Amino acid sequence: MRNDSYQTKLEEYARLTEKALEEKTTWGACRQRQVLDAIRYSLLGGGKRLRAAMVLEFGRLCGAPVPAALDLACAVEMVHAYSLIHDDLPCMDNDDYRRGKPSCHKKFGESTALLAGDGLLTLAFETIFSSRVLTSQQKNDAAGILAQASGIFGMIGGQVIDLESEGQKIDMDALNTLYALKTGALLRCAALLGCIAGAPEPEFLEASQIYARKCGLAFQITDDILDVMGEEEKLGKPIGSDRENKKTTYVTLLGLEGAKQSARQQIEQAKESVKEFEENGFLLWVADMILTRDH
Amino acid sequence: MRNDSYQTKLEEYARLTEKALEEKTTWGACRQRQVLDAIRYSLLGGGKRLRAAMVLEFGRLCGAPVPAALDLACAVEMVHAYSLIHDDLPCMDNDDYRRGKPSCHKKFGESTALLAGDGLLTLAFETIFSSRVLTSQQKNDAAGILAQASGIFGMIGGQVIDLESEGQKIDMDALNTLYALKTGALLRCAALLGCIAGAPEPEFLEASQIYARKCGLAFQITDDILDVMGEEEKLGKPIGSDRENKKTTYVTLLGLEGAKQSARQQIEQAKESVKEFEENGFLLWVADMILTRDH
Repeated sequence: MRNDSYQTKLEEYARLTEKALEEKTTWGACRQRQVLDAIRYSLLGGGKRLRAAMVLEFGRLCGAPVPAALDLACAVEMVHAYSLIHDDLPCMDNDDYRRGKPSCHKKFGESTALLAGDGLLTLAFETIFSSRVLTSQQKNDAAGILAQASGIFGMIGGQVIDLESEGQKIDMDALNTLYALKTGALLRCAALLGCIAGAPEPEFLEASQIYARKCGLAFQITDDILDVMGEEEKLGKPIGSDRENKKTTYVTLLGLEGAKQSARQQIEQAKESVKEFEENGFLLWVADMILTRDH
Repeated sequence: MRNDSYQTKLEEYARLTEKALEEKTTWGACRQRQVLDAIRYSLLGGGKRLRAAMVLEFGRLCGAPVPAALDLACAVEMVHAYSLIHDDLPCMDNDDYRRGKPSCHKKFGESTALLAGDGLLTLAFETIFSSRVLTSQQKNDAAGILAQASGIFGMIGGQVIDLESEGQKIDMDALNTLYALKTGALLRCAALLGCIAGAPEPEFLEASQIYARKCGLAFQITDDILDVMGEEEKLGKPIGSDRENKKTTYVTLLGLEGAKQSARQQIEQAKESVKEFEENGFLLWVADMILTRDH
């Protein structure tokens, strides 16, 4: 397949996910209207849906039925959206913008944003359990993996370390732990959920985890690079915020060239991890896209 | 059994739960220390553990092994603790005290409190899935019920309605919906989880839901009454906060006597719902205790 076909495939995955998320958050009239609007505002219409694409592609490679993988993709995107809402709150990163539009609390107020985040996290689990296509065993496995990946020794753990290290220099080891948890945990979870929606070979499971871990780290490193080099307009948020917040990043530790080289290295290793598998074209393309993205 | 034996039984349930929660939140040294401390601060050493007692007693009545019921009791208490942490935050009720000690954000700061709440909600699901005594089917059922009960059409829904109706008069219908969701949903969930930890008869399942719903509403009405009549010292929080926040309560809608009568009525109906069952003594006592509590 040519690169523009992979781009089309990524967009197709995003479209599928968007449609499913839209359906799962269509509710009738009720007294909770405002928080439902806030949930839809933050969940829908956004981003490349990289996590959903991971679920769907690993699902496809493991022979998963699309609806089964799609339910899990929605759950992962809900957890991701909840984490962004809470991350943007004034007591956290205090970000007024997200993807070029006002962040959830700027639009709906802090209390509604807090509850919208709580609601999305809960909804992720509800989505798994109310699935009509996943087996009981798959629901159990998926929800257990998702809980762990998003918990205090997963994504939340990453946010905690991020907060605690604010304003102080941390070393490469601590930074790698932070990135592995904050971004890596949910990406690894996405790859794993895709696999268990089908019938994965053990070596494929293992490869999926290496691939996702390497891609996750590369994603964070390019974030660090874009914060220095990116264009505000494309990013949809101000650049230079890391320096302003005195954050330790790959760029502050290794310099711009060092960071770029590290990102390249991670991506090479990610591609290496899936090289044995047939039909790995999309995964290779996604890895390269992470490296070369400008937003 | 005599009443003081039931009191002992409630305390024994609380002790069992406390010990299990303590074990489930004992972690080694790690970089996330602060949020783990915040979680333990808010989760441990507190309250009557009414929700856990519901799980354990309904579990006992349905022949559940204690360790199975206990895992579910812990999950429910974790969800309860998370809801209190987020409820106390400045953007919500802005409460400085909880059970007579500084609330989580007062002690650990807002961002840590936010993440501690997020972490507890996630940990509740992790607790279910990592259980060594629950079957896959039980885990699935329990987690699905818990997700629904704590979600936007359960507990969070109640908080949303609570926020939206602040400062404006609402009618009895809206107030009952609010209470049914904010407190009732998790109590019903607790009773249900106790049942499914064992092998419940269908009529018992149904009775448990009526019992928990009625007790939940009575609990809220006595909260309204205690906010007017209670002693600050016993409550561990200032009285009169409802009036100050211009909240509609059973007392503002029906007057003090009307509210007391409604609470009595709910408790009579709660007791009625379980009167056919043998060994209902503890449930009858708990219902009465809800009515006569002074904190």
